[in-house]
Amino acid sequence: MKLTDPNRLFPVDPQQRDLACALYSSVSDLPILSPHGHCDPRWFAENVRFSNPADLFVVPDHYVFRMLVSQGVSIADLGVPRVDGGPVETDPRKIWNRFAGAAKLFRGTPTALWLDHSFEHVFGIDQILNEATADVIYDQIQAKLATDAYRPRALFDRFNIELLATTEGALDDLRWHRDIKNSGWQGKIVTTYRPDAVVDPEFDEFKQNIIELGEITGEDTTTWQGYLAAHRARRAFFKTFGATATDHGHPSAATANLDDEDAGALYAIILSGDFTTQHAEKFRGQMLTEMAKMSLDDGLTMQIHAGSRRNHSSDVFTQFGRDKGFDIPGRTDYVAALKPLLDAVGMEPDLTIILFTLDETAYARELAPLAGAYPALNLGPPWWFFDSFEGIKRFREATTETCGFYNTAGFNDDTRAFCSIPARHDVSRRSDSAYLSTLVSTGRLREADAFEVAHDLAYGLAKTAYNL
Amino acid sequence: MKLTDPNRLFPVDPQQRDLACALYSSVSDLPILSPHGHCDPRWFAENVRFSNPADLFVVPDHYVFRMLVSQGVSIADLGVPRVDGGPVETDPRKIWNRFAGAAKLFRGTPTALWLDHSFEHVFGIDQILNEATADVIYDQIQAKLATDAYRPRALFDRFNIELLATTEGALDDLRWHRDIKNSGWQGKIVTTYRPDAVVDPEFDEFKQNIIELGEITGEDTTTWQGYLAAHRARRAFFKTFGATATDHGHPSAATANLDDEDAGALYAIILSGDFTTQHAEKFRGQMLTEMAKMSLDDGLTMQIHAGSRRNHSSDVFTQFGRDKGFDIPGRTDYVAALKPLLDAVGMEPDLTIILFTLDETAYARELAPLAGAYPALNLGPPWWFFDSFEGIKRFREATTETCGFYNTAGFNDDTRAFCSIPARHDVSRRSDSAYLSTLVSTGRLREADAFEVAHDLAYGLAKTAYNL
Amino acid sequence: MKLTDPNRLFPVDPQQRDLACALYSSVSDLPILSPHGHCDPRWFAENVRFSNPADLFVVPDHYVFRMLVSQGVSIADLGVPRVDGGPVETDPRKIWNRFAGAAKLFRGTPTALWLDHSFEHVFGIDQILNEATADVIYDQIQAKLATDAYRPRALFDRFNIELLATTEGALDDLRWHRDIKNSGWQGKIVTTYRPDAVVDPEFDEFKQNIIELGEITGEDTTTWQGYLAAHRARRAFFKTFGATATDHGHPSAATANLDDEDAGALYAIILSGDFTTQHAEKFRGQMLTEMAKMSLDDGLTMQIHAGSRRNHSSDVFTQFGRDKGFDIPGRTDYVAALKPLLDAVGMEPDLTIILFTLDETAYARELAPLAGAYPALNLGPPWWFFDSFEGIKRFREATTETCGFYNTAGFNDDTRAFCSIPARHDVSRRSDSAYLSTLVSTGRLREADAFEVAHDLAYGLAKTAYNL
Repeated sequence: MKLTDPNRLFPVDPQQRDLACALYSSVSDLPILSPHGHCDPRWFAENVRFSNPADLFVVPDHYVFRMLVSQGVSIADLGVPRVDGGPVETDPRKIWNRFAGAAKLFRGTPTALWLDHSFEHVFGIDQILNEATADVIYDQIQAKLATDAYRPRALFDRFNIELLATTEGALDDLRWHRDIKNSGWQGKIVTTYRPDAVVDPEFDEFKQNIIELGEITGEDTTTWQGYLAAHRARRAFFKTFGATATDHGHPSAATANLDDEDAGALYAIILSGDFTTQHAEKFRGQMLTEMAKMSLDDGLTMQIHAGSRRNHSSDVFTQFGRDKGFDIPGRTDYVAALKPLLDAVGMEPDLTIILFTLDETAYARELAPLAGAYPALNLGPPWWFFDSFEGIKRFREATTETCGFYNTAGFNDDTRAFCSIPARHDVSRRSDSAYLSTLVSTGRLREADAFEVAHDLAYGLAKTAYNL
Repeated sequence: MKLTDPNRLFPVDPQQRDLACALYSSVSDLPILSPHGHCDPRWFAENVRFSNPADLFVVPDHYVFRMLVSQGVSIADLGVPRVDGGPVETDPRKIWNRFAGAAKLFRGTPTALWLDHSFEHVFGIDQILNEATADVIYDQIQAKLATDAYRPRALFDRFNIELLATTEGALDDLRWHRDIKNSGWQGKIVTTYRPDAVVDPEFDEFKQNIIELGEITGEDTTTWQGYLAAHRARRAFFKTFGATATDHGHPSAATANLDDEDAGALYAIILSGDFTTQHAEKFRGQMLTEMAKMSLDDGLTMQIHAGSRRNHSSDVFTQFGRDKGFDIPGRTDYVAALKPLLDAVGMEPDLTIILFTLDETAYARELAPLAGAYPALNLGPPWWFFDSFEGIKRFREATTETCGFYNTAGFNDDTRAFCSIPARHDVSRRSDSAYLSTLVSTGRLREADAFEVAHDLAYGLAKTAYNL
Repeated sequence: MKLTDPNRLFPVDPQQRDLACALYSSVSDLPILSPHGHCDPRWFAENVRFSNPADLFVVPDHYVFRMLVSQGVSIADLGVPRVDGGPVETDPRKIWNRFAGAAKLFRGTPTALWLDHSFEHVFGIDQILNEATADVIYDQIQAKLATDAYRPRALFDRFNIELLATTEGALDDLRWHRDIKNSGWQGKIVTTYRPDAVVDPEFDEFKQNIIELGEITGEDTTTWQGYLAAHRARRAFFKTFGATATDHGHPSAATANLDDEDAGALYAIILSGDFTTQHAEKFRGQMLTEMAKMSLDDGLTMQIHAGSRRNHSSDVFTQFGRDKGFDIPGRTDYVAALKPLLDAVGMEPDLTIILFTLDETAYARELAPLAGAYPALNLGPPWWFFDSFEGIKRFREATTETCGFYNTAGFNDDTRAFCSIPARHDVSRRSDSAYLSTLVSTGRLREADAFEVAHDLAYGLAKTAYNL
């Protein structure tokens, strides 16, 4: 049996469905541009086999394991590594069986769509995963993983990925990217400059990170000018490994535009370690503006991912560390927050700043009006919890009428789950085709234009926004 | 003529409608679980007849009379009793006629659906209520009310209610529940522990309430430990009348987790009467955490109804008192607010905390991510203004993709309008069937699973969440 | 070819579409009531020809030019006049060609719908505007503009406008309205009292404005009583030019209700010039309550347009001044903000206060519950960015279930783009017909009632709310 419906996500009205299907068919074979995500470059540098289904689908994917946790499964029983040295399940088959037994929790979620798509289209599975089929499917996937056709590079080619951007911290030596480059393999994998650990004073080991930043760049990071120069040096270094963008994960969208003297004084306070949360917020905000100004010089597209309240559960953070499904969105203001940055560089036509939000209320009220006015601003696609059929629908419905399609930046999969990449782009292309067919059938868009827009949403806009 | 459309609330596409209808048919005859509401237990204890149509449908229902007030009818003219002793209309037929003459105000509202459903299915009315038909319909209902088949217990049975929970304050002697128990009648009516009046320092007569709490429990409520012991005693007492849950109506979702010493000191400040609004907020927040910890011990499910700005109009409050349709929702933060409580007990798999909101923006941004991670959290159904077709649709669309169905708690009617109970559960079952059929017809849910989910939403989830 | 689809905005299901079409047909020929907008009364006083297509469609319309700006076109290149004396494009054909070349930016926006409607129905254009057709269409429009049939008064008649309200500042001498009155032309054009410039202490030239207000009224505006008397005088003066309403554009919905002494003291602080932003906010809030009280006396309907963060870009404001597409909505609280005003006059059945919002999250959470309770409150139609198909849909879906249709105030076009008036009312009538047909086909509204409601939404409610 088929795990996925060939008409999934399309409107049900026959005429609308036909048009959605035609739009989708016109873009479904386009190569995948993945200009923002969290795949591990090491996979492609070493090209070793993925070890087992649990390590591929469950253990590293907080979308998956936190859902089981929400219904009482302990995180440790799902094999998620601990930072406190406590014991965790090590038998991948047991982990897999726990996951399979809880499949009903995912009903109606994008995770279910992605998993079914991967099972069917990547691994050729034709049974529904549940307690009864868990072992058989485990064995089928395991057998495939043992073959060369399922090594990372082979999958990369098979997924028709034209470009994949990974995300590395400012201090990363990019050794895996170097190895990929030296390997002679032609897959296009580029890095992205993500300097949070040397920009956010509240980051673990911030002070040590700044020292290290000085060491690897030869700049004097005890001074404001030296610190900025070190960033410039690292950005240039990242560009040599294909980076076309930076990325900034901040708790809020606050920006600042202090003059050089005040910024230097703030930096001194930060370095002293004797700073308040207000100082930290101001400094992060100042650095967004500094990064934007550097982007004006070096052409890197700037991404701002704002609004996640990270590590909400103290216990989970203490035991398991970051990125364990306990990052919760909060209200995020953009209008006042971005004003300093926008007053500095917002009217620059050659700058591209892509905004992402976890607060959907900002789409229509703040983000679309801002992106529909400032030349430097683009809207990123629905992020994280909102990378889903309903999320994409709400995004388009809330933003298109105010800023159109051409102030948006195409699709990002933003994933660390490699096998879900085709599934995620597929959901995006289908959801956009559904939306466009609705516009056409209600007289809000001409059919010929819809085909052009579908192509732009699936491919062209990402290419432009990220200078690919 | 029929007052209600047999296909109401189903999708219009024929295939989708057929599936929605099939899903609905599979659950429409399930017994009603009503684990949270505000019916008066005295009705069932005394089993006396309801006096007249106005007293049944208009006077006690703020959904109804505030709509007339919004268009200029005075509250007094609708017979709503005053707390200031002023005169009000006493002729039920006049009240009924005012109501009937304003029927157009309810067009497109769930109130209209509920009323039509009650008129047609409970009272056998077959004419549309308006000025011309007001008297006839009044007489028809009045005639029915005079019969034994329309006494509260008979209606309870006819409504196929398996369990009805009422809500009583911590100081209530539960005499009506005792009378029901002693009556030999088999209808299952349970109480719910709602301690707002002894938890909220800003409640009317708070200080007197605390004294009374001490008297009826024999605990020394002038001390923090005695006060907590008194709560434990009352919870145990409520359990003897079937309580499986507590309920907490707070202006915000703020929680606190002070240590014993600090909590005791705060209690002393509160008891002194010399406290600030910040003290009051902190105390309410501390008590939510205390209640959650007691729930860990005694197994009562905990409900939090946060975010209503009660008694918005000073004049209406002064003249008519509480619950008169002038409670207005406000923005409510959950992420920071719940962190102290969740750090204390959020990872407990055996605890159930059900969150309700009047701020729909929190569904996708805060509540679904929280409920999709913390084992202790469940999401309650759309509450109050959002207990409606569009409200349920928005709730499902905003939460399912992130926390699925199994972190939600089934339906609550939450009503004091007894005759609307079947109508409200019907709207809920229809709305969910409509949603599920949409998921199936767009390839997001398997048809067999949809039937299982429909049953869980209509019955199973409430049973589990409330330990029924 | 037709530029617009005769079935645009209707549902796609054939039965639903037929009903939507029937509802629309029943109201499409109703005269236009335009009780709030920003057309220039001078057009109708002088009745001179519009000069060229660019000056009609591009240069004065910030909906249009800010979209081009967002994609890198400079504002000056679109002929928008500067306040700093810098050079701007003066060739209307070049402006038109830039606009035409960027037509794809408007795909999916209401602007595209309005433009196509104007081109087709007002100017008889039958080609799609793009780079290739720009010149031909320019010439076609230009030729029409040269004829008498395209003078303002002729278009006013042809548009079937029953009444058009313009908006003038408190200091305006209303000379164009006087000229219209004296001209003998029968077109009904009335003014609206908009006193922001003499109410908002942060307005440019506020102090000078207050002096001027004293001069033209003969009141002593250096005293609080004199200042209030001056307002009363101007309101009376505006009424002689047909005003039935006032309008208030405030950054927030904050209100205050100080006693006379405190209000006088606050006014003194404001007049001294030595005030804080808190003083300014309080004063604006006090004036909303004063205006509401005056409305109780003189019967003027009161409009509150709250929540725009005006002139977000400092550069654009410095170079081009106000109303240039850089006004960005922000979060707006209504519940606490309006309480002082509502405690003062909210229960008055003879007062009409129409609330507008740019924060859609307030629809269901705050505005519908407020309007569904207080007799004095009505909800205005979706404003600005939300005057669109999706915006209207969200408004109806979020408000109807709580406050019904009869606490809303009909449609406003709120435009300065005269030729878009028929298009905007058409979108509104179609969108409401679509919504109503959905209610009927899902059993939430009776078909006969839907026709009555359609008429009220298109005509009756505005007539009542604005005392027309």
